[in-house]
Amino acid sequence: MSGFEPGDPVYADRVRASFGRQKIMVLIGAQLVRLAPGECEIHLLFKPELSQQHGYYHGGIIGTIADSAGGYAAFTLMPRDASVLTVEYKMNLLAPGDGELLIARGRVLKAGRTLVVARVDAGVVKNGRETLCATLLQTLMTMHGRPDQ
Amino acid sequence: MSGFEPGDPVYADRVRASFGRQKIMVLIGAQLVRLAPGECEIHLLFKPELSQQHGYYHGGIIGTIADSAGGYAAFTLMPRDASVLTVEYKMNLLAPGDGELLIARGRVLKAGRTLVVARVDAGVVKNGRETLCATLLQTLMTMHGRPDQ
Amino acid sequence: MSGFEPGDPVYADRVRASFGRQKIMVLIGAQLVRLAPGECEIHLLFKPELSQQHGYYHGGIIGTIADSAGGYAAFTLMPRDASVLTVEYKMNLLAPGDGELLIARGRVLKAGRTLVVARVDAGVVKNGRETLCATLLQTLMTMHGRPDQ
Amino acid sequence: MSGFEPGDPVYADRVRASFGRQKIMVLIGAQLVRLAPGECEIHLLFKPELSQQHGYYHGGIIGTIADSAGGYAAFTLMPRDASVLTVEYKMNLLAPGDGELLIARGRVLKAGRTLVVARVDAGVVKNGRETLCATLLQTLMTMHGRPDQ
Repeated sequence: MSGFEPGDPVYADRVRASFGRQKIMVLIGAQLVRLAPGECEIHLLFKPELSQQHGYYHGGIIGTIADSAGGYAAFTLMPRDASVLTVEYKMNLLAPGDGELLIARGRVLKAGRTLVVARVDAGVVKNGRETLCATLLQTLMTMHGRPDQ
Repeated sequence: MSGFEPGDPVYADRVRASFGRQKIMVLIGAQLVRLAPGECEIHLLFKPELSQQHGYYHGGIIGTIADSAGGYAAFTLMPRDASVLTVEYKMNLLAPGDGELLIARGRVLKAGRTLVVARVDAGVVKNGRETLCATLLQTLMTMHGRPDQ
Repeated sequence: MSGFEPGDPVYADRVRASFGRQKIMVLIGAQLVRLAPGECEIHLLFKPELSQQHGYYHGGIIGTIADSAGGYAAFTLMPRDASVLTVEYKMNLLAPGDGELLIARGRVLKAGRTLVVARVDAGVVKNGRETLCATLLQTLMTMHGRPDQ
Repeated sequence: MSGFEPGDPVYADRVRASFGRQKIMVLIGAQLVRLAPGECEIHLLFKPELSQQHGYYHGGIIGTIADSAGGYAAFTLMPRDASVLTVEYKMNLLAPGDGELLIARGRVLKAGRTLVVARVDAGVVKNGRETLCATLLQTLMTMHGRPDQ
């Protein structure tokens, strides 16, 4: 339990609809698997097309699903007439992205009226064992009066 | 002119070969268009498959080509028996990634024996006019004794 | 020339007055030496009381004057009824802070209505020769309707 | 319990001696109050000399004790013949530093042979109630063969 109140009773529908409009998620094959107020989890199965020069998940792809996980964690708390914008993030890569599944878990640390700060941890699962491979600290902005669609 | 000495007389071949092994660059359609000691420029034409919920380049995709641009800028300075690893980066998104072409220009700020710090600016070109849409500050590591291939 | 318009014709008085209220600047001995629209330069003479365990400027002190240099660079562009808040910054330490004078130069990269992004470079001067010892990427917020004093 | 093994059986003496050589900690009045393998906690009582323009702890001072808290958390894990260097950190300010006591708690997330990644949370205590006011993500380097003193 996160202790956050959702920004809208039907926040989950709104978040899933927005995620569904992120065409990049289709291209890479990412799936939104869990939502709670202030939380979002995205999964991405490995395929060679996602790899960097050593055959692991490219760091930028880890950043891509982590950015969306943190952004949608924040979006769960935003009012219906708002959209979410990533202001910035910083990512530390802690271990090679070597595995068959990548999991990004975004969680809001602080939700202000305009700015939201989120943390995202990304784990890579190899032979069923998960290793923390990246962690992000991210700032997001609530765009009031600009509905997502 | 960057003032840096390449780490290897045939650095360009080595960098291009490594970039060629990043399969994610093929998936998204990125191209390495310029190399110089301490510098690397990558281009990415827009296609709807790269977009976030508002139809612009997804921030994570901007981060993906910027990560590679900074990483390969650093790699130009590394010895033949080394590979490059991204330690971390921080990216500020300055304007929507709205345009037909994305350009990431990586440039080494400081090259130490083990760590290299790079800056990457990403511009988006719309109707022929380029706007700075993101800037990154990135730390990379030279993996001595571990050739890239 | 920065190309920015000041937020207020008497911006320099407003910035200097705010800097004068930062008592930490007196404790460490920092001085605001230059202002222009979107730019601010702060100097700090070395004294042993500012040092870390090896006798150099402590990284946090480099961060302290850099934070103020970027913050006041942003503040030059803000309207009279606003105050400035640091949202976040990321600092890379590029060389030891070994010298007799530390110079932080803040420069606005992008000024939005609410958020401002600044870059700060910090140089350390030893025997008259300046070395880049840190670089920051910083996000600031305009607090509209809340004058600084 | 952190699960980390100290780098040296007398790590606490070595860390305390190094902290004792950080003269900036004396100037601002910071105290190292707790150490464990991979963990370090530093306290700083408020005094007006530490304040920014609104009378709160200056963000750079929060960064200063947080940098040391993360650095010494990392140093607990390093061998006797090594010293610790901050490579970079990113700090988000989450709430005003308004209170009578500032507490920085550093904790190692990942300890590699050369690089260590730490997280630092800073809380400000006002009327006995603690509020998270900043969080940092930090990269540190083990300088093998260069003892701290």
